[in-house]
Amino acid sequence: MRAATEYLWFETKKARELVRITDQVGAVVEQSGIQEGMVLVSAMHITAGVFVNDNEPGLFEDIWTWLEQLAPKGPDYHHHRTGEDNGDAHLKSMLVHHQVVVPITKGELDLGPWQQIFYAEFDGRRRKRVIVKAMGE
Amino acid sequence: MRAATEYLWFETKKARELVRITDQVGAVVEQSGIQEGMVLVSAMHITAGVFVNDNEPGLFEDIWTWLEQLAPKGPDYHHHRTGEDNGDAHLKSMLVHHQVVVPITKGELDLGPWQQIFYAEFDGRRRKRVIVKAMGE
Amino acid sequence: MRAATEYLWFETKKARELVRITDQVGAVVEQSGIQEGMVLVSAMHITAGVFVNDNEPGLFEDIWTWLEQLAPKGPDYHHHRTGEDNGDAHLKSMLVHHQVVVPITKGELDLGPWQQIFYAEFDGRRRKRVIVKAMGE
Repeated sequence: MRAATEYLWFETKKARELVRITDQVGAVVEQSGIQEGMVLVSAMHITAGVFVNDNEPGLFEDIWTWLEQLAPKGPDYHHHRTGEDNGDAHLKSMLVHHQVVVPITKGELDLGPWQQIFYAEFDGRRRKRVIVKAMGE
Repeated sequence: MRAATEYLWFETKKARELVRITDQVGAVVEQSGIQEGMVLVSAMHITAGVFVNDNEPGLFEDIWTWLEQLAPKGPDYHHHRTGEDNGDAHLKSMLVHHQVVVPITKGELDLGPWQQIFYAEFDGRRRKRVIVKAMGE
Repeated sequence: MRAATEYLWFETKKARELVRITDQVGAVVEQSGIQEGMVLVSAMHITAGVFVNDNEPGLFEDIWTWLEQLAPKGPDYHHHRTGEDNGDAHLKSMLVHHQVVVPITKGELDLGPWQQIFYAEFDGRRRKRVIVKAMGE
């Protein structure tokens, strides 16, 4: 069995941002030499997410509108008693989930034709990390 | 380490459909000979999901009603500027998640008594795939 | 390759409860001797969830309020025709997802500074299980 671990760092300019990371994850897999296995891509923060969907700007707008409807930014969260103002970012992270597992087949990410991996920042403008851990043979 | 990969194909008659796939995933695990490990079951499309829940028709109705409330079908998505009309299917896919990892113990899927694996089609009537990748020993 | 499997049992006093299980998962990993790999933490029930977020009581209140808004308890679910009254618990389980995969690096859970693993009970007061399956080397 082989394992390879890499940490991707992000410091988004905006509080909320989607970053396509398929190529960076693919590079970790390629360098690992793993032919058959899985790669875990997991945000190491509780106000960020990782998901797989379409690389289409119109859809990005829809995702942001939708997340704002289901987990709105606002002053009313109990969490804000701690001095934080990012209660919505925690709920958004739970909603999109903070991780995906991507299959590795014949040395490459085995994604469908339209599948792209995204890092979703819900409370940015500071350095944050995603772990990429590949495992296989 | 052993790995086994299988692609399940679906072409649902309706645009939206739930298909129970526990037995097909179990068959991949059995054929792999893996005794201890994990199997990833992951939709290769961005308008489909994979989830684990109860095999109960009343609940299926509740799930569809609920998904329609939280991510309704409609003409108002920005994504539709591309000519698509399936914006809701993308959001539904994000909501239920597109994958599960099922533990393998003593050569079998290690699921709870009521747990069943489902493929959730949100924009069907064409051929679509799920990857089943088992890993272990 | 090494694998280790443990089942955590829960019998919560309340119907709904969040239980922090990071230390129990960490203990399984430590006992396994696995240095590099992944550990799957997965509820074996369809009315429970497992998620990673912040260990902050104000946030817990926000999570419960939010789950109740998006998947309310009520008498109107089709699933209740079976005699059950926990339709909401199934939807809550789908919403937060029933599992996480935690990376193992240098023999330890490789979590971010604020990440904690939680078992989320949506229909408790009876014995329920979570499987913890570690895999690696």
